[in-house]
Amino acid sequence: MSKNIPYKIYLKEDELPKQWYNVRADMQKKPAPILNPKNGKPMTLDELSVVFCRELAAQELNETDPYIDIPGEIIDFYRMYRPAPLVRAYYLEKALGTPAKIYYKFEGNNTSGSHKLNSAIAQAYYAKKQGLKGVTTETGAGQWGTALSMACSYFDLDCKVYMVKCSYEQKPFRREVMRTYGANVTPSPSNTTEIGRKILSEYPDTNGSLGCAISEAVEAAVGHEGYRYVLGSVLSQVLLHQSVIGLEAMAACDKYEIKPDIIIGCAGGGSNLGGLISPFMGRKLKGEADYRFIAVEPASCTSLTRGTYAYDYCDTGMICPLQKMYTLGSSFMPSASHAGGLRYHGMSAVVSELYDQGLIEAVSVEQTSVFEAATRFARIEGTLPAPESSHAIKAAIDEALKCKETGEEKTILFGLTGTGYFDMYAYQQYNDGTMSDYIPTDEEIMKSIDKLPEIK
Amino acid sequence: MSKNIPYKIYLKEDELPKQWYNVRADMQKKPAPILNPKNGKPMTLDELSVVFCRELAAQELNETDPYIDIPGEIIDFYRMYRPAPLVRAYYLEKALGTPAKIYYKFEGNNTSGSHKLNSAIAQAYYAKKQGLKGVTTETGAGQWGTALSMACSYFDLDCKVYMVKCSYEQKPFRREVMRTYGANVTPSPSNTTEIGRKILSEYPDTNGSLGCAISEAVEAAVGHEGYRYVLGSVLSQVLLHQSVIGLEAMAACDKYEIKPDIIIGCAGGGSNLGGLISPFMGRKLKGEADYRFIAVEPASCTSLTRGTYAYDYCDTGMICPLQKMYTLGSSFMPSASHAGGLRYHGMSAVVSELYDQGLIEAVSVEQTSVFEAATRFARIEGTLPAPESSHAIKAAIDEALKCKETGEEKTILFGLTGTGYFDMYAYQQYNDGTMSDYIPTDEEIMKSIDKLPEIK
Repeated sequence: MSKNIPYKIYLKEDELPKQWYNVRADMQKKPAPILNPKNGKPMTLDELSVVFCRELAAQELNETDPYIDIPGEIIDFYRMYRPAPLVRAYYLEKALGTPAKIYYKFEGNNTSGSHKLNSAIAQAYYAKKQGLKGVTTETGAGQWGTALSMACSYFDLDCKVYMVKCSYEQKPFRREVMRTYGANVTPSPSNTTEIGRKILSEYPDTNGSLGCAISEAVEAAVGHEGYRYVLGSVLSQVLLHQSVIGLEAMAACDKYEIKPDIIIGCAGGGSNLGGLISPFMGRKLKGEADYRFIAVEPASCTSLTRGTYAYDYCDTGMICPLQKMYTLGSSFMPSASHAGGLRYHGMSAVVSELYDQGLIEAVSVEQTSVFEAATRFARIEGTLPAPESSHAIKAAIDEALKCKETGEEKTILFGLTGTGYFDMYAYQQYNDGTMSDYIPTDEEIMKSIDKLPEIK
Repeated sequence: MSKNIPYKIYLKEDELPKQWYNVRADMQKKPAPILNPKNGKPMTLDELSVVFCRELAAQELNETDPYIDIPGEIIDFYRMYRPAPLVRAYYLEKALGTPAKIYYKFEGNNTSGSHKLNSAIAQAYYAKKQGLKGVTTETGAGQWGTALSMACSYFDLDCKVYMVKCSYEQKPFRREVMRTYGANVTPSPSNTTEIGRKILSEYPDTNGSLGCAISEAVEAAVGHEGYRYVLGSVLSQVLLHQSVIGLEAMAACDKYEIKPDIIIGCAGGGSNLGGLISPFMGRKLKGEADYRFIAVEPASCTSLTRGTYAYDYCDTGMICPLQKMYTLGSSFMPSASHAGGLRYHGMSAVVSELYDQGLIEAVSVEQTSVFEAATRFARIEGTLPAPESSHAIKAAIDEALKCKETGEEKTILFGLTGTGYFDMYAYQQYNDGTMSDYIPTDEEIMKSIDKLPEIK
């Protein structure tokens, strides 16, 4: 059987998904509604449309339609870099000496370097369709900003990116890619917004955070006619767009009769994990199949494993809707020693609810062990992975080694969200032996959790 | 017809080439023999085996076998990143409004970022098979060094890379990728070799050159037991390995009945151009088909269009075999304002001979026009191209625009050798408007051509 499975499975173009899958439709207990920060009541479509494009706002609130058509213009763009291959990690299996079969869904074969493009193009499309001039956003590791720049360039939209300051400094070349695609890039916190000036005056030496960059981007959108804010993770609309990852992976698995036992994804805001697992979760929810799902977090930023499940602000500036999620508190800032992405304080409402229902497991892994796994993977499987993706690699290797001990021939599927070509500063730290691990103390975490808003 | 052609053509694994194609076997007039610099006589296999691995030396001298089996271990490695897609540039065609059909063979979907890996893995394989400890090499833009690091890591060989100084400084992250794969990287010229020290004392402010880095790498190999020198371009063995590009492209064309009229490749040392065109040239030589072949050079380093066809040293240190080629002279150093690769002083003997026979055309393009084409391509087709590859893009766009004028529906195939993710320093110059063009004067070129060795 396995002899007929190619090393890389590329679906044919006519096998590509034509609809996104909305896992909320199949959840009996839905995620809690998002609330208006001004009055604590569920956000209406009209209220949400002030921040987001109207059709994206509708997708955000849609809990009933399991399938949503992908517009033809978006499918056209997907064809540029999709299908993404489902790769059998033969070489890694051999090197580990494991009886497990390891597959990874590789989303890095595009210039943004990650899966982020799947949602960026959708959000740019709806913005263009609504006749907007442009969009604003934040970027942490830089993948989302790059993806959005590419998408905006395609639809000729203005693109303003607030880039978390430490990333801006560590990744000057990410900035250049965005500029090459015509985007405006500002390090955050900046003097260009009120919230940025406020944060700078309180914390002049801050490295920035995603929450803070989000606040600046929202302010820049709400304050300008013809602009809306777009976000690359956390939101349910983003998980919807990212379901293309899981749908393709599932189609490839079905085609070759591959039955994953364990599905692993790195988890920051939850966009990749949610997108990868959604269609499989749908089958699990309907009792058609069973899988173990594992979310992998950095030990320095652990919303699922050490956070609390409560309503919180999505942004440091407290202007976005409130969302019930596993969170470390919107004022949580990961240590400067944390090198990769996955630095968001909270987790997607969908992923949070599924985790709370016991349908997803979560583990946290330390940074140096992640880069060790990354380097090992690069040398064995060829591709130099993004630090974020390498969290999933680390967990997949750990599971494969458990199989080696027990002799079980499990099938492991993990999401390789992207490449690390713009993360060489972090690799350099690892190569030089100057990279450190950092686990926040309970006190540090409680300090930001204590600031959660009070919602009855 | 064209409706059935997918946007990206991926061959199936069993359609991948199992043999390389050696175009010299089908050339009536062969390239001139390589000569021993010590006595001016044709190099024997034994002499050549002091510098290169024996099997590679044999390939270098092989002018008779049209097909050479690709060893299974190399095919295994090729499977990690091949097949490389043949992409129809639908979006570019539409944006140009041309009746021409444009295809590109994309070799950038691997961590080395270019086609260089095709030969790196072959050279590492033969070195391992011969029981060597390691290999030495030079790298200019960094793609070859990265590719060789990956290949050596796969076969557990020591890898010493001399990196042209200006690239080393402009591309610190390239260096880190090589280190991640376990390579040793030294900026060239360096104090670690005799020739490096000599050049530094004569030209203390030099930016380095490929010829000089080659000399250092050769010295480092010849002086160490268990080491050999490997080279990423120019050599006939490299063109042999790179024929996998053309063979795949031809198989994909044949499968979908695509008949290229014009085949375009960027040309530095000739490895990509030679590899891409070889099998098509074979058909042309046998009268089975006809094509226009266009080599595209940077205006700042024009061995074909402004060089002379003569025996020359392959390296500044004059220790490599002498090769008859189109050359600017081994002491030619491209201007520091030249940003990308394609900075070698000479051209592959095979490409040179084909050019001399009138079977290949050559054009030169200026740097800013190349980056203009690169940025345009990135925004339209998604992928951010390497500066080297963008020379071919520029020429392909020019040919497509000619078709627009004449109304001809020509089919254009070009080689997209790689991605520009490690070339953002150059893109930044372009984005900032600080990039300049430089065309050497006749006097400058004559100065280095005057130093050509005298061979009767």
